[in-house]
Amino acid sequence: MKKDINIGLLGLGTVGSGVYRILTRHRDDFRLKVGADLNIKAILERDISKADAVGADRSLVTTDAPSIIGDPDIDIVVEVLGGVEPARTFILQAIESGKHIVTANKELLADHGRDIFEAADAKGVDVYFEASVGGGIPIIHPLKECLASNKIIKVMGIVNGTTNYILTRMAEEGCLFKEALKEAQARGYAERDPSADIEGRDAAAKIAILASIAFNSRVTSPDVYMEGISGVTPEDIMYAGEMGYVIKLVALAKEEKDGLDVRVHPTMIPRDHPLASVRGVYNAIFVEGDAVGEVMFFGPGAGSMPAASAVVGDVLDVARNLQYGRSGKVGCTCFETKKIKTIGEISSGYYLLMNVVDKPGVLAKIAKAFGDNDVSLASVIQKGPRGANAELVFITHLTREKNLRAALKVIEGLDVVNRVCNVIRVENSGD
Amino acid sequence: MKKDINIGLLGLGTVGSGVYRILTRHRDDFRLKVGADLNIKAILERDISKADAVGADRSLVTTDAPSIIGDPDIDIVVEVLGGVEPARTFILQAIESGKHIVTANKELLADHGRDIFEAADAKGVDVYFEASVGGGIPIIHPLKECLASNKIIKVMGIVNGTTNYILTRMAEEGCLFKEALKEAQARGYAERDPSADIEGRDAAAKIAILASIAFNSRVTSPDVYMEGISGVTPEDIMYAGEMGYVIKLVALAKEEKDGLDVRVHPTMIPRDHPLASVRGVYNAIFVEGDAVGEVMFFGPGAGSMPAASAVVGDVLDVARNLQYGRSGKVGCTCFETKKIKTIGEISSGYYLLMNVVDKPGVLAKIAKAFGDNDVSLASVIQKGPRGANAELVFITHLTREKNLRAALKVIEGLDVVNRVCNVIRVENSGD
Repeated sequence: MKKDINIGLLGLGTVGSGVYRILTRHRDDFRLKVGADLNIKAILERDISKADAVGADRSLVTTDAPSIIGDPDIDIVVEVLGGVEPARTFILQAIESGKHIVTANKELLADHGRDIFEAADAKGVDVYFEASVGGGIPIIHPLKECLASNKIIKVMGIVNGTTNYILTRMAEEGCLFKEALKEAQARGYAERDPSADIEGRDAAAKIAILASIAFNSRVTSPDVYMEGISGVTPEDIMYAGEMGYVIKLVALAKEEKDGLDVRVHPTMIPRDHPLASVRGVYNAIFVEGDAVGEVMFFGPGAGSMPAASAVVGDVLDVARNLQYGRSGKVGCTCFETKKIKTIGEISSGYYLLMNVVDKPGVLAKIAKAFGDNDVSLASVIQKGPRGANAELVFITHLTREKNLRAALKVIEGLDVVNRVCNVIRVENSGD
Repeated sequence: MKKDINIGLLGLGTVGSGVYRILTRHRDDFRLKVGADLNIKAILERDISKADAVGADRSLVTTDAPSIIGDPDIDIVVEVLGGVEPARTFILQAIESGKHIVTANKELLADHGRDIFEAADAKGVDVYFEASVGGGIPIIHPLKECLASNKIIKVMGIVNGTTNYILTRMAEEGCLFKEALKEAQARGYAERDPSADIEGRDAAAKIAILASIAFNSRVTSPDVYMEGISGVTPEDIMYAGEMGYVIKLVALAKEEKDGLDVRVHPTMIPRDHPLASVRGVYNAIFVEGDAVGEVMFFGPGAGSMPAASAVVGDVLDVARNLQYGRSGKVGCTCFETKKIKTIGEISSGYYLLMNVVDKPGVLAKIAKAFGDNDVSLASVIQKGPRGANAELVFITHLTREKNLRAALKVIEGLDVVNRVCNVIRVENSGD
């Protein structure tokens, strides 16, 4: 057994600082758990003030990545740089030098997971990535190990805290998307360029990772159908509320007979669904398995210390593997290659808000367009009239999306329809 | 690498039948995950009809435990008999013969965990027990591994579905404890002798297991202070609701400067706490760590298939260890021996319901008794008068229990106090 396990830390930003703090603070405890000291031997970071901020010895800090990756004394490389490059190159080089990897990098894994796991498998090293999804919430390990006994039917989660904060503010304060975004930025919950969160790219990478594990088949970011939240209006949230729903940015992945259904978009979920009560920057991931039924994992989806909690949990796991000479146990589990459905092929319930001319026969024309395209309505509510116009709110039963789109094409061409204001998918466990 | 991993299944009851079904149903999938066939080679069961019910070959079934435990071809012994004996003897013998153990046995682990883990450590075999707490919910692995990076501050859960079903019915239907219990029995959620659930013994065993992991110090069932739910009345639930609380049977474990605080009792928790919305037979476990903050695990806490999901998840983990020659990685983590507080030493908020004589000066006398004993009141509500009497509802700030008990002794002796109807602890994250 080793007495020292040495770590090279790539990045001393938000997550990296938390990793440094935890490894320092709980050094004695970790020695008991692992039987060795966990030492940070080198830190890749340009900004030396970050070392001062966490109290790290400046001599540990370097801007020379190869000096870390090539250091024969380093056992584990912790990558918390984020982004695809140079993280990808560093990780592949570190694997090639026989280092074990702990990473929080969702973009990298979602886009280049296969290359990384294949390289790790060839070298017999561990690649752990608990922090890549759900921040501090344990989800990768539970899904990959504890729930491995199940055929997973569905994974559905709120995996982006920024958008959940915005939607929560909109729902609770009745404010506009733009106002809620501005507030999120002021509080540090949204970045200055918030597009990766707002447009759903962050959530898409995370659900790609979860789907790959859940269904034993590689899903990458470009495979995920994606819509952001900027089109959600206070009216949508109000009507959703009237009908017993809340609107969340939901990332979901289901396996169906004709393929995998993986997507991220604003979604109406019933108010009594466990995900509906997840407020603010919290995340929650709901997993349905054929044996376990429904389980949910809830907690802080981001932040320095929560993400670092997951990273250091992985470091401890890798360190224990090292101590017992048994690395590389649970590698890539994408044994199969399953078809991924296009958005037209998926089925969902739909909420539709339309502005129409308020006169007799309008509903009949719209209903005919739905019926002609095999779209069955669960409920219709008329709002208004507002002047000469009215608003119609529809909820459909489970419908194939290509049928809905065909119906909408007809409906948008009707002279009595001023505008289809919004279409939001409805996830209803009862349908 | 082995091509076959053989399992001896001790018990074909509720959980054992589920284990048999999952191992049969997902045989091909598990071969991919483990690289070997997982075969049930022998089943210990007196009732042959249970083999017929799951479609197991009758020739697998025996009543001769030593023939399973001593079989050199068997790699993993799965114990789902429940109860301390003969499970304890069988498991210790199996460990002695070098078998790896998967068990769902909370009583055994809570009372004799140390013996079992020491024996396993000496032989270098795995003992996995994910199903012992929370049924299908992954909690043992996440707490022991993913959250190992944290100093755990608190574990708090609804870990008994029977009592949660009863309390949910009482809250939602306004019925009496006895009526709700009868209904739970009719639905198969409570046993004919429900005392282990109702009195909190089941929950006490589970929190003993969780506390041992969370605080790296052995906690056994007798260490856990325990009160059941039979004293909870519809009035308590009503008053709790008026003050923004719900009543749940909460199992909790906290580490404080002067020792561990581990207990099971009816508890008032704020309505917006994540545990408050856990209804019916569901379980949820809330963990607070110094790095991660608050995470929660939610799902079905009992039932054949959920519990079997956890058992087979462990079997897969043990099988993977076998394939890579690295068993016994994460053994017992009770490195320390921490003091466990007596109930008098703990601190809590308290709800108190009293029936008093309705005349001036009563409140002053009661308030003086509280004040004299350092009990600070957060709120007082008077209900009534009902004839010559009234009801007083108190909520205290955080109070040392021995002080509360001293005050109650004085209060019970006051001639203006007819009766102290109930005392329920209040867990308020805001205090």
